[in-house]
Amino acid sequence: MFKAKLKADVLRDVIKVVSTLVDEVKLNVTKDGLSLKAVDPAHVAMVDLNLGKEAFEEFESSPGELGLDIDKVKEVLNLAKADTVLDINHDEEHNKLVFRIDNITRHMSLVDTMGMSDPKMPQLNLPAKVKVAAGELLQGIKASESISNHIALVASPEGFELSSQGDTDSVSLKLRKDLLLSLECTEPVRSLFSLDYFSNMVRAVPSAGVIGLAIGQDYPARLDFEIAEGHGKVVYLLAPRIENE
Amino acid sequence: MFKAKLKADVLRDVIKVVSTLVDEVKLNVTKDGLSLKAVDPAHVAMVDLNLGKEAFEEFESSPGELGLDIDKVKEVLNLAKADTVLDINHDEEHNKLVFRIDNITRHMSLVDTMGMSDPKMPQLNLPAKVKVAAGELLQGIKASESISNHIALVASPEGFELSSQGDTDSVSLKLRKDLLLSLECTEPVRSLFSLDYFSNMVRAVPSAGVIGLAIGQDYPARLDFEIAEGHGKVVYLLAPRIENE
Amino acid sequence: MFKAKLKADVLRDVIKVVSTLVDEVKLNVTKDGLSLKAVDPAHVAMVDLNLGKEAFEEFESSPGELGLDIDKVKEVLNLAKADTVLDINHDEEHNKLVFRIDNITRHMSLVDTMGMSDPKMPQLNLPAKVKVAAGELLQGIKASESISNHIALVASPEGFELSSQGDTDSVSLKLRKDLLLSLECTEPVRSLFSLDYFSNMVRAVPSAGVIGLAIGQDYPARLDFEIAEGHGKVVYLLAPRIENE
Repeated sequence: MFKAKLKADVLRDVIKVVSTLVDEVKLNVTKDGLSLKAVDPAHVAMVDLNLGKEAFEEFESSPGELGLDIDKVKEVLNLAKADTVLDINHDEEHNKLVFRIDNITRHMSLVDTMGMSDPKMPQLNLPAKVKVAAGELLQGIKASESISNHIALVASPEGFELSSQGDTDSVSLKLRKDLLLSLECTEPVRSLFSLDYFSNMVRAVPSAGVIGLAIGQDYPARLDFEIAEGHGKVVYLLAPRIENE
Repeated sequence: MFKAKLKADVLRDVIKVVSTLVDEVKLNVTKDGLSLKAVDPAHVAMVDLNLGKEAFEEFESSPGELGLDIDKVKEVLNLAKADTVLDINHDEEHNKLVFRIDNITRHMSLVDTMGMSDPKMPQLNLPAKVKVAAGELLQGIKASESISNHIALVASPEGFELSSQGDTDSVSLKLRKDLLLSLECTEPVRSLFSLDYFSNMVRAVPSAGVIGLAIGQDYPARLDFEIAEGHGKVVYLLAPRIENE
Repeated sequence: MFKAKLKADVLRDVIKVVSTLVDEVKLNVTKDGLSLKAVDPAHVAMVDLNLGKEAFEEFESSPGELGLDIDKVKEVLNLAKADTVLDINHDEEHNKLVFRIDNITRHMSLVDTMGMSDPKMPQLNLPAKVKVAAGELLQGIKASESISNHIALVASPEGFELSSQGDTDSVSLKLRKDLLLSLECTEPVRSLFSLDYFSNMVRAVPSAGVIGLAIGQDYPARLDFEIAEGHGKVVYLLAPRIENE
């Protein structure tokens, strides 16, 4: 049994986070809320999302799994304004999710969750930690997009830097300590990442949101932030690229 | 002889109505205004439009026919703001229509009306009649567009419904009696239509407009509405599709 | 040595003017400002632009040449708001231009200026001169675009006219003397031009700007206007097309 009412914008936050990595996703529902874990097809990145029942207007569920086609959920969201309340019910007999938005009813078939994996989040020892307004990073990402497909994240005791190196041109965004919300870093570390993945992850942070970044030397990065006004938590892991000197 | 001045928005309403079905159209002009009848090339739909001389700022005409290339009229409208007054004259010597907009003069060649038919509007006995704000239907149309190329219109004594059925998903917009401006229906009827045609017709209704719908069981639908602030009338007929069970 | 600070919008004006004709440009810098001259690859048009040091927030330079890739400068401008102040330095050791915008630093490689010509602006005797708000011309240009690839500029003692002739349709914008800021013309003259070039030139005028036009009979046209709030001057020359009767 799964019955829920939630604001369209809360579901929009969730879909934005997940759609950067996968087209279909398995939601795990319990009486306390929902969660999901997913790895992208290229195995470059992983997401772990938890949304507590407090994020919902109403929520009632027994333990179970719901397989969602992300594009279909986007179609439903296109019909809703920001604070429209969606009513969602699981029709177990036909295995469909029934969405109600104002006078519209949509019956959505569910995706088979049989083949979907349950990825496990690895524990990583990431020595440098930064907290920063996501907006601060976006200009640096935009600047990098015209230079390269890769972006280096660099932390030092003095600050945090995004930097991209093209064949002839280069660009960097330097955020000194005072532009960061917090910085833990004893020695300089640097790792290179796919700009596409990193950009999509930062853009999935709700506007005016704060992002926590943890990095090491040539090591995966961990991004975490809140969604649904603090009632949801997202963790992304992103594998590094090899930097050729 | 044909001389007229009219607000760009009035001509825009007319062109929007006609361009859903045809690329060229024959205008019939008389001393009382203009009218047109057209059938789309696939013979799925028909339009009958009347625009009285009161819709114009100035209007003077002897009986005649003017063959318009719709795209050319759109080009002229692209030069005009909503309440710009267009000045239109028929230059009979060169058989061109002369448009004046502010300081611009455009001489537009006319299309030969010889081969254009004069379709006759059939009389149909349509038992169910609904009046509804066109805006109410647009969400239902939008919801259907992601599901199917067809849409069913369903009337019952309780209300009016738009519904679409895809291979796995379905969607419906239910408007109960109190959301309709009027409803005449003694027994349930249902017909299936091309969503494209229906959508274009509803979108041709001026914003904040009211649409009258008349339907039967597996029968053509009749849509009517006003343009040019009530000085013009539009009737569309739309042939049904066969519903496979 | 070249060091400058300037508002993003001033650089945007310059790039808009130049990018209508070329992809790369040689800037000549002196202690008094910068200038450039360029001819488009088809040798149809020429531009001569001067930007005094007063157009800059700060300016210091020894005489020299800087070869710019226009697209790269556009990328930098995409990172800046209208009144963001850009800081530009020439890194002579690596022959790169270093742009600083807020916390972003971009190192931009320069283009070799060896092969770039130094076109000389010919002296032309153009009998008819018009000054007009650039905005007045834009509607006429837009109207012509659906008719032809060419546009005729026509001056007479009574006014100024843009006119285009297609196979079946024609359009003209007539500006009587009172709609012009000034008119010097003793006898009618007319020349035909590529609409594309002329349109791009007029669109490069800053909004609310005034354009000076000088034309002759089947002769090149000269356009001049100011940029950077009067601290910069642009002259375009545009070769005529042959008019077939």
